[in-house]
Amino acid sequence: MRILLATLLALLTTSPLLAQQKPVSLIITGGIVVTVDATRRVLNPGAIAIDGTDIVAVDTPGNIARQYSAKQTMTVAGQIVMPGLINTHTHAPMVMMRGLADDLALMEWLQKYIFPAEAKTVTPAFTRTGTRLALLEMIQSGTTAYADMYYFEEEIAKATKEAGLRGVLGQTIIKFPVPDAKTPADGLARARRYIEQWKNDPLIVPAVAPHSPYTLEEDTLKQCAALAKELHVPMLIHLAETRDEVEIMRSQHQRSPTGYLDSLGVLGPNVLAAHGVWVSAEDIATLKARGVSVSHNPESNEKLASGTAPVVGYLKAGVTLGLGTDGAASNNDLDMFEAMRFAALLHKLQNNDPKATPAPVVLEMATRMGAQALGLDKQIGSLEAGKRADLIMLGLDRARTTPMFDPVSHIVYVAHGDDVRSMMVNGKFLMRDRKVLTLDEARVIADARAAAQQVRDAVSAAASAAGAAAK
Amino acid sequence: MRILLATLLALLTTSPLLAQQKPVSLIITGGIVVTVDATRRVLNPGAIAIDGTDIVAVDTPGNIARQYSAKQTMTVAGQIVMPGLINTHTHAPMVMMRGLADDLALMEWLQKYIFPAEAKTVTPAFTRTGTRLALLEMIQSGTTAYADMYYFEEEIAKATKEAGLRGVLGQTIIKFPVPDAKTPADGLARARRYIEQWKNDPLIVPAVAPHSPYTLEEDTLKQCAALAKELHVPMLIHLAETRDEVEIMRSQHQRSPTGYLDSLGVLGPNVLAAHGVWVSAEDIATLKARGVSVSHNPESNEKLASGTAPVVGYLKAGVTLGLGTDGAASNNDLDMFEAMRFAALLHKLQNNDPKATPAPVVLEMATRMGAQALGLDKQIGSLEAGKRADLIMLGLDRARTTPMFDPVSHIVYVAHGDDVRSMMVNGKFLMRDRKVLTLDEARVIADARAAAQQVRDAVSAAASAAGAAAK
Repeated sequence: MRILLATLLALLTTSPLLAQQKPVSLIITGGIVVTVDATRRVLNPGAIAIDGTDIVAVDTPGNIARQYSAKQTMTVAGQIVMPGLINTHTHAPMVMMRGLADDLALMEWLQKYIFPAEAKTVTPAFTRTGTRLALLEMIQSGTTAYADMYYFEEEIAKATKEAGLRGVLGQTIIKFPVPDAKTPADGLARARRYIEQWKNDPLIVPAVAPHSPYTLEEDTLKQCAALAKELHVPMLIHLAETRDEVEIMRSQHQRSPTGYLDSLGVLGPNVLAAHGVWVSAEDIATLKARGVSVSHNPESNEKLASGTAPVVGYLKAGVTLGLGTDGAASNNDLDMFEAMRFAALLHKLQNNDPKATPAPVVLEMATRMGAQALGLDKQIGSLEAGKRADLIMLGLDRARTTPMFDPVSHIVYVAHGDDVRSMMVNGKFLMRDRKVLTLDEARVIADARAAAQQVRDAVSAAASAAGAAAK
Repeated sequence: MRILLATLLALLTTSPLLAQQKPVSLIITGGIVVTVDATRRVLNPGAIAIDGTDIVAVDTPGNIARQYSAKQTMTVAGQIVMPGLINTHTHAPMVMMRGLADDLALMEWLQKYIFPAEAKTVTPAFTRTGTRLALLEMIQSGTTAYADMYYFEEEIAKATKEAGLRGVLGQTIIKFPVPDAKTPADGLARARRYIEQWKNDPLIVPAVAPHSPYTLEEDTLKQCAALAKELHVPMLIHLAETRDEVEIMRSQHQRSPTGYLDSLGVLGPNVLAAHGVWVSAEDIATLKARGVSVSHNPESNEKLASGTAPVVGYLKAGVTLGLGTDGAASNNDLDMFEAMRFAALLHKLQNNDPKATPAPVVLEMATRMGAQALGLDKQIGSLEAGKRADLIMLGLDRARTTPMFDPVSHIVYVAHGDDVRSMMVNGKFLMRDRKVLTLDEARVIADARAAAQQVRDAVSAAASAAGAAAK
């Protein structure tokens, strides 16, 4: 009898039907698959075959089951499966200053709180602690890739790789002495070392991040661009964030911030400009002509009263437009679902048009266009065969997500970061059923709480010093 | 030995120290108590003594422990304890149309989707199902009281009382035939019966809700106001929501919507006007002079591109200003934390002032001022001795809520509805440690999903009919 069964089993597993099945590592099946591909295909239900780091196929559950056999099958009925969200602008370790000083004008905020806190606290260890907290928050809210500009960027790269996220991580260059560089030349040397070290990592794209046109001299801006060109890496920069910046550029260079950078010859398709609030039609045309991408940060721009980026104008002109949260010191979180919701609503209001920035377009900004903005559109940004498996799954079994008529609308107008149940980057689960697998949640939070005391001490020391000086 | 112990125990419990302790039903202690009282007192840590339905004292944990002995003590270290949020404008059962039709102009949205769906689906049973779903969402996101305008309002009142929430619930009157009334006269008769039936309920304040100045004749508006006056109940009305409304009023009555209502003599301190977007300085002065309260609905106004209410102007003029979500068909949720965040950010941007609508003011709009807007400021809206125990507790142990420098900033800029751990209304827990106690969560969601199919069928029948008519 045992021999008969074994023979039957052998016959079955070598039968023509099963022999045609291609082995893969994982099938995710039964969910609502929102691909965000060029045709905006939604499969309800759908399935995804993943082998190692890559998506092999996206199809109906029946077709996937016929064509692939998987070591592991995950059934996610009722969940939305979608590309991971891409945060195109943040300063990850600034989660350590989340809500440190709200409801202030930008200069007061920077000078009384952020600069003193950063000057006294930002060390490699503090940067690691803050980055891990940021990574934990990003994992728990469905961000699979992010662009960063900060100090000690090599620490951020290390922590990001350990946690398994994808990052385009830019070493900041600025004209003032900062925690990791006394001069811009120091910063540039740091950036070169860091980029060379991380150049061929599968998850980390190192980048150079000149802070902004108004916080750097002309020469340094050119050197940053030359370094990025020489090493074939992206250049991240703040651009045209506030009206003040426009006035400074006009008085110093008789040009708009965008016009000024263009006159230096530093704009190109490797440039990702954050904010882009104060741009003329001519500036938009320049950005389009040079292939510059823009990161739109609606919450930060609203909270700091910076202004409203002409999102509809950018989209009409065909400028690649990603979404970002900015640092949590000005947002106050890294939740890309909230960034989508703010973007979708704000531009309807500002354009007096309820059809402006519809849900499918905003979702593209947070995924496919975000990937383009990072120069990673061949690898990520949609669920398509041949791309890396960077994806998230949303549970929709709550009162506030019931009922559902349109999954794309639900992603943009209803879902919270807290609805992300599972997420993977490069084919590897970083969170599964809310259990974070690559970071010790309790430890990360405890470390951050301990380090927050350094921030409190730094700010109160600065306040005492200012009080004493005033006497 | 046993006798000795018993004697000692008897001595202890009758000792002068303990004898001075006042017995209460519940002490909540160890949390960060954000009172939202007139002095904006925050106790960190603090404690609250509750007896039956009422708050007896708010003080330090030590003082409360010395003065009160409780049957039950709840220790909530690390949590924020604050007044429950007050949603001053919604249409609860419209959660059944959450995300039914987004990114559309108001008229298309109403005529192709909302009106056909309502005409075919809104029955007492459907209203109950929808209201229960809305109540579940409100409980889970920290709303303890809400103002509502819909049909079959007696069903909404019954469901609200069963779930244990507080409501100012207005029977809608409108000039078109609607699911619960063929004529405005029918609606008025309904409203009278409903109000008389619910008049002295401890949780429900029945109200009359004329839909708006442009959807009712002059006579009906006056009759609504007379009914509210006669029965001493609030009157809820949509006012000056869109630019179109202003144009209709100007062409029909040569007045602004506010000016028109005032000319009818229907404005008074019992009136709560939703939206108030398109108001002149003169209109604001009129609303202030008549004691009218306004419900600000930032998300709905943005999403439908209605405009920006002059919130800073209202506050300067001393108009009582609550916050609202509007119905979930246009928002798409009932999350008052999100409403706070949208309000706080929007008006900074629109006033070009990062200090506009600071966190403490926005929190007041969602609590103390909201209570005033509902005419319930003697009972609710802050944590103070003598008020009802309507309060919520927020857990802040997540990555995205770490670190915390200022609890009020965290409430407005960081917290989600999902962070609400426990909530009580009138001294009774409706949710404790995320377990909802007064509704069967799974059943409510299952019922809503089943009823959503009726909405889908109604909309597709309307689309087919429109298609056939077009041929």
